[in-house]
Amino acid sequence: MASMTLKNINPNILKVEYAVQGPLVARAGEIEEELKRGVEKPFKSVIRANIGDAQAMGQVPITFIRQVLACISYPELIGEGNFPEDVKERAREILNSCSGGSIGSYSAPYGIDHIRRHVAEYIERRDALPANWQNVFLSAGASTAIKYCLQLFSNDTHGKKNGVLTPIPQYPLYSACYAKYGLTQVGYYLDETTNWSLSIEELERRLNEAEKRCNVRALVVINPGNPTGQVLSRNNMEDIIKFVYKHNLLLISDEVYQHNIYAEGIQFFSFRKVMMELGAPYSSIELASIMSASKGYMGECGLRGGWVELTNFHPDVQAQLYKFMSAMVSPNILGQAAIDCVAKPPLPGEPSYDLWLREKESVLASLRERAKMITDGLNAGQGFKCNIVQGAMYAFPTVILPPKAVAAAEDAKQPPDVFYAYRLLEETGICVVPGSGFGQAPGTHHIRMTILPKTDDLRTMIHSIKTFHQSFIERYT
Amino acid sequence: MASMTLKNINPNILKVEYAVQGPLVARAGEIEEELKRGVEKPFKSVIRANIGDAQAMGQVPITFIRQVLACISYPELIGEGNFPEDVKERAREILNSCSGGSIGSYSAPYGIDHIRRHVAEYIERRDALPANWQNVFLSAGASTAIKYCLQLFSNDTHGKKNGVLTPIPQYPLYSACYAKYGLTQVGYYLDETTNWSLSIEELERRLNEAEKRCNVRALVVINPGNPTGQVLSRNNMEDIIKFVYKHNLLLISDEVYQHNIYAEGIQFFSFRKVMMELGAPYSSIELASIMSASKGYMGECGLRGGWVELTNFHPDVQAQLYKFMSAMVSPNILGQAAIDCVAKPPLPGEPSYDLWLREKESVLASLRERAKMITDGLNAGQGFKCNIVQGAMYAFPTVILPPKAVAAAEDAKQPPDVFYAYRLLEETGICVVPGSGFGQAPGTHHIRMTILPKTDDLRTMIHSIKTFHQSFIERYT
Repeated sequence: MASMTLKNINPNILKVEYAVQGPLVARAGEIEEELKRGVEKPFKSVIRANIGDAQAMGQVPITFIRQVLACISYPELIGEGNFPEDVKERAREILNSCSGGSIGSYSAPYGIDHIRRHVAEYIERRDALPANWQNVFLSAGASTAIKYCLQLFSNDTHGKKNGVLTPIPQYPLYSACYAKYGLTQVGYYLDETTNWSLSIEELERRLNEAEKRCNVRALVVINPGNPTGQVLSRNNMEDIIKFVYKHNLLLISDEVYQHNIYAEGIQFFSFRKVMMELGAPYSSIELASIMSASKGYMGECGLRGGWVELTNFHPDVQAQLYKFMSAMVSPNILGQAAIDCVAKPPLPGEPSYDLWLREKESVLASLRERAKMITDGLNAGQGFKCNIVQGAMYAFPTVILPPKAVAAAEDAKQPPDVFYAYRLLEETGICVVPGSGFGQAPGTHHIRMTILPKTDDLRTMIHSIKTFHQSFIERYT
Repeated sequence: MASMTLKNINPNILKVEYAVQGPLVARAGEIEEELKRGVEKPFKSVIRANIGDAQAMGQVPITFIRQVLACISYPELIGEGNFPEDVKERAREILNSCSGGSIGSYSAPYGIDHIRRHVAEYIERRDALPANWQNVFLSAGASTAIKYCLQLFSNDTHGKKNGVLTPIPQYPLYSACYAKYGLTQVGYYLDETTNWSLSIEELERRLNEAEKRCNVRALVVINPGNPTGQVLSRNNMEDIIKFVYKHNLLLISDEVYQHNIYAEGIQFFSFRKVMMELGAPYSSIELASIMSASKGYMGECGLRGGWVELTNFHPDVQAQLYKFMSAMVSPNILGQAAIDCVAKPPLPGEPSYDLWLREKESVLASLRERAKMITDGLNAGQGFKCNIVQGAMYAFPTVILPPKAVAAAEDAKQPPDVFYAYRLLEETGICVVPGSGFGQAPGTHHIRMTILPKTDDLRTMIHSIKTFHQSFIERYT
């Protein structure tokens, strides 16, 4: 008899779901294998529009970051003269900040001080407000950072579970972590009719309802939005901050897409800037702001670099959090080095600046073009309603499904959007994530697709989706 | 009022302790700052003998690994011709196994298949037994791997907490994780008089005692031992496996020091090999065997590369574990690449082989020399009793303290070994970890020190410790 069975393992593990890499994505992998074996399909390759993984879709890395990584990995390259002087200088600085001068040594569990200082300087420039580097900790990607923040209050002593106000739709890392840590997910709906803004009435209502079943401890806001692609207005953010203050919550602001702003006239504000500029008493709320090297113009998902800035945390609580991290030793040094390059990119006049700027602008301009292309493409004609992709990397259109298709999905024992996404994958090779993986208003159906396929592929993809949709509708009318 | 206070955060966080980076180590950092500021001390620098961080202590990285990392970080280097052909070929292979051909993309949450296959081949060569690559998952260092294994059964549904049989002394990552996940630590004493072997009688006794307060689900064995430096005999391992079988436990074998074997006539056997060669029914026990790129001859702590091989896990449970990991996206790709180089080093006849072998042998020969030096040095004269350091990176000697010193420690409200370690640090600059951070038999006092300081530094260190000890004894006699 096995000692570990489905009946006696941690029941929270059974509950964890992560739609971005769920069974539909596994099926996409199988289809790729079938194509390799020569199985006939109505398409030649799978397009993975399910995950915000820019370099997997062909985005070219930023040269400066990669040259620095190469030099610190193999420091002999610094002496050999083939790299720009600022790359070598950066590599020397990072190595000097490592124990024993090597990336092969541990750093402190909260990261290398030298790099934490650069992050604080980045935040100061971004917000035009002072920042304290000791409130910044580095992490192996945003996912680990979010985990630490949630674990801080995940085990309640007062008999009632702790809850977190979380958008619907949400990025499923949150729901997966709640399942894992036994937190209660208190969903609040984003308003699709006002481009996925937060309604304070809705927050109040959900908080009020939830208080019977749990202690609501925190509010998660993802801005720019994942999967929804909105960028919050400053007014909306001010109202959110006032709500957080009123109810004495922790605000967890997931700001990993802060570089990914596309729509005309739209600007990203950090929650930290808005709360500080609101002034007392709102500037006293506790905030954990999360950033990553995986998104932005860098797209370095595989390096697992991230950071959190803590604002207004009680020093004893912050000390406990830092102590808590120490058993996990240190985040990987190369990810930290990538964060150093993100926080402190080349300056005008430095040898790498022109290339860095050109590469950065080129990535962002192309994403901007693709964001517009996907919205315009889906909204032309019938079948989809898609809000403007103001930021991040995703479109989250409503898919208009006829009643017969909904009935067919019921027969197949699948939610209608899952049924639709499987058909889309099998018939076109396009892998998207069904809206139910993120949550959506009852009776509505969505898909999330990234804007990351290359421009030509994206054009083909939009065309294929619309053709598929037409034929799907015809089948069920 | 703060929303997060010491009274309402996760109480498990308050309980987490990690002696290897605890307050004594923080004091070492302060002393370094004081020295920089010109404060007069009876020593010129701090020697950090507290943590198994080889490159921080000057160990030189393996060229092959670092050249591969440089090439995959900046693939232009592959074309430029300055690296050996096998380095370039390895880099090309790794890049081909990455989505989009880039280390900037996510891998599967359990790692890149190509590298998992190489790990399975390594295990096959090591054990002369077949291995299945799908039972191997890659992780961001051994710490993350251990966390996943413990989370698998950390939340009990039957009202009673789950417990883990854990050595005393143990590596405090285990106790920190138990605190975090609400597991019960069921300590069993290693027998110092038989070079820290496991006594089955002791295991039976502790299991029996513990069953009143928890469900014992697993046994942790660290071999080669941390902090104790022993290498288990094959006989002892067979008895342990029979014990695990009898009580239907999961065996978690922490084998991260499997390359670090020093003593004459001593050989490392993996638990997997021993159980398989014992045959039925013992070959059916569930085993999670853990390995890392941080120790061995590589010492690449900062890269955070590790793996686990699962043996005999129920397929449904294994599937749940793999699903569970998916929300944490992927381990960092450069750490995985380091694992690839560890699992599949250069072969005889390949351009990098000679240098790789020379570097590897040189590191291991030097560690062997230092392991002997520390045991001989401490055992010469009085004050210390130190078992032979057969493997791993640590000596864990008994420190013989006079009753007056124990009384003085009591007055200072410190355990005697902590009192001793603080005095040692303040007077010599040598930072060790007190035995109480790992656990020790009541009434005994130990310190853990690494064998990692360079040979000359280690000689000086041993001399300083013995001089300090002499003066300490004189004060308290």
